Amino acid sequence: MAEKDWIARYFAPLASGQGAAGLRDDVAQLSIAGPVAITTDAMVEGVHFLSRDPIDTVARKLVRANVSDLLASGAEPAEALLTLGWPAARGEAEIAAFAAALGDELARWGAGLIGGDTVANPDRLFLSLTLTGRCLAGAPVRRAGAKPGDCVWLSGSVGGAARGWDGLHSAAGRAWQEGGKDAAAPAWVSAYRLPELPPLGIAGLVARCASAAMDVSDGLLIDARSLAAASGAGIHIALESVPFAGGAADEAEMLKLASWGDDYQVLFTAPEGQASEIAQLAKKEGVKLARIGKIVDGSGLALSLHDRKVNLPETLGFEHGRVGSPVTRP
Amino acid sequence: MAEKDWIARYFAPLASGQGAAGLRDDVAQLSIAGPVAITTDAMVEGVHFLSRDPIDTVARKLVRANVSDLLASGAEPAEALLTLGWPAARGEAEIAAFAAALGDELARWGAGLIGGDTVANPDRLFLSLTLTGRCLAGAPVRRAGAKPGDCVWLSGSVGGAARGWDGLHSAAGRAWQEGGKDAAAPAWVSAYRLPELPPLGIAGLVARCASAAMDVSDGLLIDARSLAAASGAGIHIALESVPFAGGAADEAEMLKLASWGDDYQVLFTAPEGQASEIAQLAKKEGVKLARIGKIVDGSGLALSLHDRKVNLPETLGFEHGRVGSPVTRP
Repeated sequence: MAEKDWIARYFAPLASGQGAAGLRDDVAQLSIAGPVAITTDAMVEGVHFLSRDPIDTVARKLVRANVSDLLASGAEPAEALLTLGWPAARGEAEIAAFAAALGDELARWGAGLIGGDTVANPDRLFLSLTLTGRCLAGAPVRRAGAKPGDCVWLSGSVGGAARGWDGLHSAAGRAWQEGGKDAAAPAWVSAYRLPELPPLGIAGLVARCASAAMDVSDGLLIDARSLAAASGAGIHIALESVPFAGGAADEAEMLKLASWGDDYQVLFTAPEGQASEIAQLAKKEGVKLARIGKIVDGSGLALSLHDRKVNLPETLGFEHGRVGSPVTRP
Repeated sequence: MAEKDWIARYFAPLASGQGAAGLRDDVAQLSIAGPVAITTDAMVEGVHFLSRDPIDTVARKLVRANVSDLLASGAEPAEALLTLGWPAARGEAEIAAFAAALGDELARWGAGLIGGDTVANPDRLFLSLTLTGRCLAGAPVRRAGAKPGDCVWLSGSVGGAARGWDGLHSAAGRAWQEGGKDAAAPAWVSAYRLPELPPLGIAGLVARCASAAMDVSDGLLIDARSLAAASGAGIHIALESVPFAGGAADEAEMLKLASWGDDYQVLFTAPEGQASEIAQLAKKEGVKLARIGKIVDGSGLALSLHDRKVNLPETLGFEHGRVGSPVTRP
């Protein structure tokens, strides 16, 4: 089937708004009036997801990786452009399932597809999504902007994706993926394949209250250090305050879960005086938030556990472009 | 080197404007006030370009493929997001050359880089660029909108890329690519590697005069048929009026050059009464234009050569997603 037939059959039904022109043109028109945030996230088979991951969760995770960036900047998702590098080995049924999940997930966040490009990538599935968002503040909330004394807040929990990854690579997890009769799905597998984002309402909370923000897709520790560096300050995290998915038995487990990534939660900072307003907004919007630390004078990341200093682990998170990404871990 | 170091060293210098925030954040803010056009085009090694094509021409062609879409919609390029799927086999010197050429080419069209994502694609280079543009009319000029009686206009010439491709795949062209001492560069090779676009001024001309427009990247015949279909009309092209790169000796050569693609010219329609205004504007902006046909009642594409009907060739152009793309031609 030719590209235009794929588009007409599977993607045009996802097109929303006049600016998309039914995906029949090479260009789209953005519909947002006012400040527009824009982000791009790519996912590659065998690098960011596993070949055997179901195609519908791959599509949803692609959307969520982008949505996560927008929520953390105080913006609501609006319009998407998809670059699809499709390998010949995946058939039409997979395209149909991919498109249906992509459209459903975009709609869940109030967004629609307005354009993109579909090409052949012979060896593996290559996905890239560009997503625009309405800035609820006058501009995107940035990583820079945190001030010494600000509290550090984290939505949801971290470590679920790491647990899911481990489960998929355990003997039981491999048996389950191969369709073993008696094999049960590993715990937390859905946290890896389909990370749960904070609700849309967090965008307004960030826009209203945050002095700095980012999503924590690469690992809490590396991302916290990035936020502090961008703000020209130091950051202190009290590990006992961090909500770990499934809890954490000891310091070693905490450090592992805090340096893995793929959790797609929002990390933000705000002056201490706003704590009660933040708690109220979080309750109203159904956002789970924890205060996990402080912005401090100086630079770099410091960790403690019940007031005892904790040494940083050698690896603070997933460093893109390096060998040793999550998917190539043993 | 980690992704953030690549970005800081090679891509941050290309970042323009406050909205890019020096490429240090996951999101950018668009700077355009007014109607925004947006387009995405991807290019894959071994599919859309050859592994041995110089990395600087690959970067420039990626930009031009996107610029071409905007110019044809009556929009001026503004801000770009790059998805770079980089294979381990290509080293840092190539990244540096790629980034320098990308930035230079964007700047040539008045655009800058504001964001993107850099990932590993183990097997081959995978490139996708999203480019925004300022709509010079109130909205993008579309493929739909041509009316029976409208004249059909084409910028520049078509067929240069086809000639360059043939040259690269001739015995002499292969010897030249392999660095043969006495081998001369095949004629037209730069038309394939680095297609010459019409000047920026064509965007204003299209915005002011065109009833319908598109770029002809897939081949003149297939794209002309697409424009007519989107407009709910037929299209007639007089082959003797089409400027072919290097001329065309006979009907067979005309049909080949008109159905190859990769030329990145602008095809548009306008009422006959605007012909003299169009000619004046074209002269002022340095745009080469030819009147190559008419929009007619009915549907489909009809060809003639000196008033004699010409049968359509079996293949009208490059159909994306099919085996038989230019690069896999014998």
